[in-house]
Amino acid sequence: MDNSLSDITIRAAKPEDCHEIVRLIKELAVFEKLEDQVKMTAEVLQKDCFGDRPLCYCIVAEQQDSPELVGYALYFSIYSTFEGASLHLEDLYVNPAYRGRGIGTQLWKRVTKHGLDLGCNRLQLTVLGWNTKAKDLYTHYGFKDLTESEGWHLMRMSRATMEDFVKG
Amino acid sequence: MDNSLSDITIRAAKPEDCHEIVRLIKELAVFEKLEDQVKMTAEVLQKDCFGDRPLCYCIVAEQQDSPELVGYALYFSIYSTFEGASLHLEDLYVNPAYRGRGIGTQLWKRVTKHGLDLGCNRLQLTVLGWNTKAKDLYTHYGFKDLTESEGWHLMRMSRATMEDFVKG
Repeated sequence: MDNSLSDITIRAAKPEDCHEIVRLIKELAVFEKLEDQVKMTAEVLQKDCFGDRPLCYCIVAEQQDSPELVGYALYFSIYSTFEGASLHLEDLYVNPAYRGRGIGTQLWKRVTKHGLDLGCNRLQLTVLGWNTKAKDLYTHYGFKDLTESEGWHLMRMSRATMEDFVKG
Repeated sequence: MDNSLSDITIRAAKPEDCHEIVRLIKELAVFEKLEDQVKMTAEVLQKDCFGDRPLCYCIVAEQQDSPELVGYALYFSIYSTFEGASLHLEDLYVNPAYRGRGIGTQLWKRVTKHGLDLGCNRLQLTVLGWNTKAKDLYTHYGFKDLTESEGWHLMRMSRATMEDFVKG
């Protein structure tokens, strides 16, 4: 395999990429041991990324002359009442066979540049504590672990619980 | 003080509320011991909530015949690659003098109902681990602590670090 980036293109996702992106989302979920949680389909992703009310941004890495995408990053605007406009990086994934070539870094730089262009004051993400390889990389690049330093916990309510709560 | 909700109105925020909302944001930050992090101003909040590209939703609680707001909730759309459209509740705050009357619950129900109307499959928030009173309430209402159960850590890059990363 070519170990340079010369045959890799980083570009904005297109509606027709959604089948491939969902395939990669499922690969990432298997690695995270959370594959039972994935309900995403190409149809839903296409509507949510490219419909009347886009809910997220997505960029992809493709290899020249290959129909398969090798990586993607999905992110969206969030808001801090302390610092204003911010960006949340939901997923950044590169297929294992393509790692070590800097594809992830290129995806990440493009997300960060977009965040700066949007006037964002923060870039956030969540990482599984046991994924020390990812966590060490994020720390190396200047991310601060706020769960460790300030004690933030992430909490979630499912749609079924939301429905119960509104009725109750 | 009237202990019922009869003199309290929950309504969508208006541009002219932003000075009062920022006053409450600062009250919350003092409670969280994070007041040194607050850079928000009424002008920035007004632009970000009510400008060409609204970055968040905000609702407020007001008392009849009082110019001061007594609480607010600020939230926005996020996206899960596993489950799709979701909502993040950034802040929910009621001034201590008005607690115990159900104002927080009313704000929260309105946020949750909006999330259901938007087709959201999850409602998320972050809470400081030492704030056991809030954490216990969230758990009581059906929130699951994903930092405890799945090990999620919240990480953040500042704008200065984003700028360095893009250059490097």
